[in-house]
Amino acid sequence: MVLGKHGFALTPLTADKTTRLQRNAQYKQIEQADIAYFRSILPESSILEESSCPQDTYLAFLTDWYNLYRGSSAVVLLPTTTDQVLAILKYCNDHHIAVVPQSGNTSASGGSVPVFDEIVVSTKKMENIRSFDPLSGALVCDAGCNLETLDTYLAQYGYQIPLDLPAKHLCRIGGNAATNAGGIRQMRFGNLHGSIMGLEVVLADGTVLDNLSTMRKDNTGYHLKNLFIGSEGTLGYITAVSIQAVRVRPAVNVLMIGFPSYDHVVKAYDLCKKRLSETISAFEVLDQDSVRCVQQVGFQVPEGSPFPISSDEAFYVVMETAGSIEEDEKKRVQNFLDELRSSDIATDGAIATTAEARESFWSWRTKLPPSIVQTGPHSIHFDISMPIPKLYQVVYDTREWMNKQGIIGRDVVAVYGYGHVGDGNLHLTIPALIDSEELREKIDEFIYTWLTQYSGSVSAEHGIGLMKAPYLTYTKSVTMVNQMQRIKNMFDPNGILNPYKVFPQEHELLEGQAVKRRVQAARCGC
Amino acid sequence: MVLGKHGFALTPLTADKTTRLQRNAQYKQIEQADIAYFRSILPESSILEESSCPQDTYLAFLTDWYNLYRGSSAVVLLPTTTDQVLAILKYCNDHHIAVVPQSGNTSASGGSVPVFDEIVVSTKKMENIRSFDPLSGALVCDAGCNLETLDTYLAQYGYQIPLDLPAKHLCRIGGNAATNAGGIRQMRFGNLHGSIMGLEVVLADGTVLDNLSTMRKDNTGYHLKNLFIGSEGTLGYITAVSIQAVRVRPAVNVLMIGFPSYDHVVKAYDLCKKRLSETISAFEVLDQDSVRCVQQVGFQVPEGSPFPISSDEAFYVVMETAGSIEEDEKKRVQNFLDELRSSDIATDGAIATTAEARESFWSWRTKLPPSIVQTGPHSIHFDISMPIPKLYQVVYDTREWMNKQGIIGRDVVAVYGYGHVGDGNLHLTIPALIDSEELREKIDEFIYTWLTQYSGSVSAEHGIGLMKAPYLTYTKSVTMVNQMQRIKNMFDPNGILNPYKVFPQEHELLEGQAVKRRVQAARCGC
Repeated sequence: MVLGKHGFALTPLTADKTTRLQRNAQYKQIEQADIAYFRSILPESSILEESSCPQDTYLAFLTDWYNLYRGSSAVVLLPTTTDQVLAILKYCNDHHIAVVPQSGNTSASGGSVPVFDEIVVSTKKMENIRSFDPLSGALVCDAGCNLETLDTYLAQYGYQIPLDLPAKHLCRIGGNAATNAGGIRQMRFGNLHGSIMGLEVVLADGTVLDNLSTMRKDNTGYHLKNLFIGSEGTLGYITAVSIQAVRVRPAVNVLMIGFPSYDHVVKAYDLCKKRLSETISAFEVLDQDSVRCVQQVGFQVPEGSPFPISSDEAFYVVMETAGSIEEDEKKRVQNFLDELRSSDIATDGAIATTAEARESFWSWRTKLPPSIVQTGPHSIHFDISMPIPKLYQVVYDTREWMNKQGIIGRDVVAVYGYGHVGDGNLHLTIPALIDSEELREKIDEFIYTWLTQYSGSVSAEHGIGLMKAPYLTYTKSVTMVNQMQRIKNMFDPNGILNPYKVFPQEHELLEGQAVKRRVQAARCGC
Repeated sequence: MVLGKHGFALTPLTADKTTRLQRNAQYKQIEQADIAYFRSILPESSILEESSCPQDTYLAFLTDWYNLYRGSSAVVLLPTTTDQVLAILKYCNDHHIAVVPQSGNTSASGGSVPVFDEIVVSTKKMENIRSFDPLSGALVCDAGCNLETLDTYLAQYGYQIPLDLPAKHLCRIGGNAATNAGGIRQMRFGNLHGSIMGLEVVLADGTVLDNLSTMRKDNTGYHLKNLFIGSEGTLGYITAVSIQAVRVRPAVNVLMIGFPSYDHVVKAYDLCKKRLSETISAFEVLDQDSVRCVQQVGFQVPEGSPFPISSDEAFYVVMETAGSIEEDEKKRVQNFLDELRSSDIATDGAIATTAEARESFWSWRTKLPPSIVQTGPHSIHFDISMPIPKLYQVVYDTREWMNKQGIIGRDVVAVYGYGHVGDGNLHLTIPALIDSEELREKIDEFIYTWLTQYSGSVSAEHGIGLMKAPYLTYTKSVTMVNQMQRIKNMFDPNGILNPYKVFPQEHELLEGQAVKRRVQAARCGC
């Protein structure tokens, strides 16, 4: 048996699973003549074909991060220069060949793999650092640069990328930009709209937008780059990024704190923003079930180590601050913890005093998603935004609804809620025992309808991709989506770039608005 | 004599001064029937006509911040609701009536006043705060809210707007968003692309984009709001803004430091980003001439007070840090100053120890632009971005060129360079003795051509407006500008929103590229 990601059985082809999408017949099916053309413009090492490529290597381009989607490209292209990307896109546009721009392929919403037979064009061989200015921190690099590699490079100058993700060893900066990636330190560094200074983008017709500004301030005309940040490869192919790196703050403290209820967590968040506003860089929440899960699977670091504080609390927060002066920062963090205890907000807490302890504290958070995935082969994932005080209620309500429906125990193992509460962003992971489109849709429908009560977002940081396209209008109005569609049509009139992604089908678009109206009516009792 | 802004003679009508622009005959001239329509949809107090309005009041809508441009609207509209804006724009679009969206009218590039007879639609009567969440800091308010008023409102909750400008008592948040305003604390808070979470925008045809998200993270489809941030009222009319307010850091320190050369300033900047990276909020540079100018005009606070340190240095920096704990912050700042002195980077420096002293230190920077303007009635203004080490060279080179040309002493008083060096942003102000389009163009041409050597920006934070439209392609490529124009045509096919602004005329567009090519050729010696 061929194994997919995380060691589970390879997921079936998306084309065989989905009922909501049909292959769009306007796209040409790749022929030998097309591959011959690609051979004429690319070196041999930049072209992979299924027939001559090791199966594992090839499947890695076609299967998504969660092993939920699988496409079937006849060819995978790995250009090394912007000019090669230009030539590929121009050809594909002229011949109506559908393309999936792919970077690190760590999309958590099925956004970076083919749905049917779109061809993968990967950034993987575009890995040059073009320039770095140690005074200003301006870094310009190819889209295929790996996030961790960039951080290692910058560390020698005392800098870091203003973005940090558990998948940093795999993801690439072009994909980060294309999805406006968030991660665990967004509350410190802000989002990529603020820190990306410029992009080089190839449009579907081969036009190159040369916008690699290294200036922090540049108000000359429309800020086109921001349109591509978060457009998930549907408007253009990002070939290079200019980003404002930030100075490393060496005085890092990591805390693990226990709370009797989620309301106490919210109070702690408020206090932390008051007392530590300039150095707080992460505020991540776990519940008791999450801690138990990591413990049972044994993924904590070091393996088998005990939880650092009492593990009888309902909630835990992994908190990190990063400042310049060790002594000052230690004192501030200790004072904060003392105040949490003396005001009965927190019941227990500890500060990691060594690099090993910091890694160990963090591991309870970073190893949670892979631990959960081990407990059920067909995990269902959510990535929602909401007002912070309401954020955790969705976990309780989903569990209650699933219990009533008999879903827990039969179809799914449990409901886990955790994540970037400091940014109003919660992840729910529901490890399922069965691979059922119907089950997924039922749970999606419950959670996204619930969200509309608080005008929440169906995707805080993962993007829409393929997974959430039916639910875009649960968060954005039809008017907004129509304007997005006009922009799509303007930049990519043949629709060759990442088709089937982001936009819902016509009936889904209307359904989203109908749900919003129903929820609205129920709320106002009319 | 009717006086214009800053007490100088009212500037002539732009239509009588400009040779580069012709009124576009496609725009309808306002008739009584149009005004009657506006009366049917707006209350009496929302319509101003020249005939029945005090002259000063009316001229304030027609004359720009620098008293350089003046238009002649037949009517000024002051809607109070989004629905009224919708009705106005829809009518104007249907009848091809050109509109100038105007907020606080503090544009420093002539972007917010009519060029010919476009009608002013002001945000001035849209001043409601719609919501504020003291836990998350999410503020939603009408576009006409004044920046200082918002700051006063937020202060009661321990928050502030992540934007600070000398014109904060006059500017309004809608205009700030429309121009991606920068200001003195951008190095701390980042730009508005990062901190604005949502916008409500009325398009030219009356479509309302309801995108007032209060979520820090929301990756659902294209980030349309960012297209309107910095579009200077040419793509849509911003009626409301959702912005992430930041916690006030009470431990504020202001320093005045003297340096023997600009290279020493650059070294100090580097050290400051290393030592104080999490609390530094402003790093503003003045040269000796600037200090003398404020002294002579007597605008410093308190009036006539001496400069706080030795005034024989070539350069000065006004620096501000803001942290949470007074004692810690004081120590850090003192250590930094000691290190500057012991490493011979700075020659003299002082820390303001009282609120009065802080205000006094700052006044040497904030009162500089109005002081300069007093020395010559027709100031010429620049707002450029460049790599920090090169930033000040443009002042020396401009002075040298002007001396050679005999311009200094005859046509202009002096060349002042100052500004947000921490963001790579320098302002040049050249007080001129004559009001000459030819002189302005000659100086523009010299400075902007100089800039192209370093791929600098012709507008760091002021926007393009009317003033810099001929020079847009000195910074952006024709390809980029063409894509901007396509977006403009898509959102505003009749071109009714802020015409003549942002985009250069056809021949100017090509000229910008020709200059870039010439400079490039000279650099590579080919």
